[in-house]
Amino acid sequence: MSYKAFEKTDYENLLKIINDDERVLYGEEINEEYSHDELGGTHSVPDAVVKALTTEEVSAVMKYAYDNVIPVTVRGSGTGLVGACVPVMGGIVLDMSGMNKVLELDEENLTITVEPGMLLMELAAYVEENGFFYPPDPGEKTATIGGNISTNAGGMRAVKYGVTRDYVRGLTVVLPNGEVLNLGGKVVKNSSGFDLKNLIVGSEGLLAVITKCVLKLMPLPKKTVSLLIPFKSLHAAIETVPKIIRSKAIPTAVEFMEREVIKDSETYLGTAFPDKSGDAYLILKFDGNSKQEIESLYDNVASICLENGAMDVLISDTDERDESIWKPRGSFLEAIKSSTTYMDEVDIVVPRNRIAEVVKYCMEISEQIKIRIKSFGHAGDGNLHIYILKDDLSDTEWEKRMKAAMKLLYEKARELGGKVSGEHGIGFAKREYLHESSHKTEMELMRGIKAVFDPKNILNPGKIV
Amino acid sequence: MSYKAFEKTDYENLLKIINDDERVLYGEEINEEYSHDELGGTHSVPDAVVKALTTEEVSAVMKYAYDNVIPVTVRGSGTGLVGACVPVMGGIVLDMSGMNKVLELDEENLTITVEPGMLLMELAAYVEENGFFYPPDPGEKTATIGGNISTNAGGMRAVKYGVTRDYVRGLTVVLPNGEVLNLGGKVVKNSSGFDLKNLIVGSEGLLAVITKCVLKLMPLPKKTVSLLIPFKSLHAAIETVPKIIRSKAIPTAVEFMEREVIKDSETYLGTAFPDKSGDAYLILKFDGNSKQEIESLYDNVASICLENGAMDVLISDTDERDESIWKPRGSFLEAIKSSTTYMDEVDIVVPRNRIAEVVKYCMEISEQIKIRIKSFGHAGDGNLHIYILKDDLSDTEWEKRMKAAMKLLYEKARELGGKVSGEHGIGFAKREYLHESSHKTEMELMRGIKAVFDPKNILNPGKIV
Repeated sequence: MSYKAFEKTDYENLLKIINDDERVLYGEEINEEYSHDELGGTHSVPDAVVKALTTEEVSAVMKYAYDNVIPVTVRGSGTGLVGACVPVMGGIVLDMSGMNKVLELDEENLTITVEPGMLLMELAAYVEENGFFYPPDPGEKTATIGGNISTNAGGMRAVKYGVTRDYVRGLTVVLPNGEVLNLGGKVVKNSSGFDLKNLIVGSEGLLAVITKCVLKLMPLPKKTVSLLIPFKSLHAAIETVPKIIRSKAIPTAVEFMEREVIKDSETYLGTAFPDKSGDAYLILKFDGNSKQEIESLYDNVASICLENGAMDVLISDTDERDESIWKPRGSFLEAIKSSTTYMDEVDIVVPRNRIAEVVKYCMEISEQIKIRIKSFGHAGDGNLHIYILKDDLSDTEWEKRMKAAMKLLYEKARELGGKVSGEHGIGFAKREYLHESSHKTEMELMRGIKAVFDPKNILNPGKIV
Repeated sequence: MSYKAFEKTDYENLLKIINDDERVLYGEEINEEYSHDELGGTHSVPDAVVKALTTEEVSAVMKYAYDNVIPVTVRGSGTGLVGACVPVMGGIVLDMSGMNKVLELDEENLTITVEPGMLLMELAAYVEENGFFYPPDPGEKTATIGGNISTNAGGMRAVKYGVTRDYVRGLTVVLPNGEVLNLGGKVVKNSSGFDLKNLIVGSEGLLAVITKCVLKLMPLPKKTVSLLIPFKSLHAAIETVPKIIRSKAIPTAVEFMEREVIKDSETYLGTAFPDKSGDAYLILKFDGNSKQEIESLYDNVASICLENGAMDVLISDTDERDESIWKPRGSFLEAIKSSTTYMDEVDIVVPRNRIAEVVKYCMEISEQIKIRIKSFGHAGDGNLHIYILKDDLSDTEWEKRMKAAMKLLYEKARELGGKVSGEHGIGFAKREYLHESSHKTEMELMRGIKAVFDPKNILNPGKIV
């Protein structure tokens, strides 16, 4: 596909559309940040940046780009890890972070309508103030809702509440040619033709630009309790998880972590973790409407843990104690990042009873390939975040060893019935691994769908397919 | 699209593939049942019927049909209401009802793997015996799971637990050309390219043939309680529902019904409904793990109902009393059907606070058009089942009045932000209403997706798009 070379006249035309020179950036006005995401593994500077404020503006920009065959890459707050928001083919970056308003809280239909640039933490706080609950809870709270929808982000509470997809009732989207569509709505059920809304969810900005989101809310649980459970080894901790699930308890979250990662977090945050006894930990969260209800949920789980080698079960039911546990958990990505020179990530998901095998395998290949590997993640839903660290390896050695480790990890995931990405997406960085892990025909179907929505391949080209 | 005329040699070739003459039917061997579904509004006799038993057989039949350009229509137990399983272009009907086995119950991953011909009631019983719970609960218990997935069936418990889509973790499907794909799996999260699995869910057999289903299970709630709440009028009953939702209670189900439909059910079942006082009723269900937990959920709801004109709140917490309420509810479709000569249905879904408007509108157009209209349904999720009755109208008069009523109802749904179908699907009967209610581009995207999966348009042609 050949694109039009972006010229000064294109900038001027975009300026006419937007009519605000602070919201159309060109050449040296473009901040370096727009050339990469949080992890920074993919770099490419856009020709122009447009900071959109309305669906109409997005539509007009897309129409211009479509007519002139200019690539457009949508960006939220740039917290991604796989380069999905990086304009690898140049062209326009459409910055949605200014479209960040709450449009409606509908208490009778239990929905909230927001613009896609709203941050997850702002949404969570807003609904809580009103006695509601938006369950998806990815670790990165400064991600935008549009970004969360585009990657079908999961987060900690997926064990009980599912993932972002489960909370998207309706979307307003702009197609590559500038047409505006409303998909879904406030309705709870829908069986009216192929589900285009669910195709947009998780499509990483390749099919359409999301400009409005109708999200499902739930009543806010009245009480939550967290359990911090030290184990002698990571293996013992993780092996306990399938037993917890099997016991028919429904925890909100089940996270695992090892001492080494906690140490990184202590250094990074400058605060001590509330327990020193274990080499590894499970953190569980339970929610409900009364203390008794929650106690009846976790009593049995505590016994199961103690029977399976837990050294203790520490109960946290105050905000302060909760923060001392969950704040370190929230800092792991940054903490590991600051413990090394550079790193790359693997976000595989496997059936939840296979997590222990993956963690053991990480240790094996770390020794075999001689590269540091750290992992933590969502034991309750089978989604691991594995970080491969560069440390003082030379660039060549790093590339070689990192790629060897990744190859083995993705092969392992596939062998265990898992997938390349649980919640971070494919973007630019994981394309080859998706292609290797997927049936050829599956990729062909995806390419076919891409061509139906975007025949000129102008929306986020170079990603996924 | 022109299809090959089905000949005796095609039958013989299918027989060679299946190698069992009791499972390949041709000409007069074909039971009349294969020419219509439950409602019977669409009629067309297939040229052949193949009763498949394995994914390999389905693959071989599809390959043959693809190579020879013969239409194939998949059929479960034929309980649909919109003609989706009727072979309107002739060709082969692929009867999946023999593929009805449980393949695996995985207690560590909370999944069950079944063949698509398994009946909903068999699945529900099987998992309950094992202490698990499959929440989707459409009224028609003799539907197959494959059918439920193909229409994204909802049912009564959607208020709390969501719809079939939310419980489909993985699918094995056969594409029109015979290729077999595994989509999703046992994983809880997935962000690995466009979500083809979610595109298949609700696609009514137009994109691929489902041959294996990995379904999410939940622990079985230990206790359920139902409330039967009589009101003086249907309007009073339904107006109460948004107040219940607003109170942040989470009922499992909220159904509404009026006296007249209950009378039909009494005649049909030959048993008396447990209460005579109301002209209309709400039935609510609550579930949880203890009596106290459930009581705390429904106490406030009972007060809200009494404040809003409920005449009483009758609590049912035994199986016997539950049956006396829910069995009539389950019989409404058959009961209304047997109260008239012929009928057609409307399955619109609207935001749940707009249900009262729709019910009022039904009454208005019933008077205006002079045609009997009965409705009942899922007040808690905005999905109404509206039946238009022929009674002793002439065929011409029936067609005229029924179509006039339908047109108005679908327009109303659209005006209220609703959709053509909440759970029954589009199939053959509702195509024109979907096309009228949808953006032209939405239909074009659906047609494009259909062509990507099925370039020769052999799979369930003549439906939806």
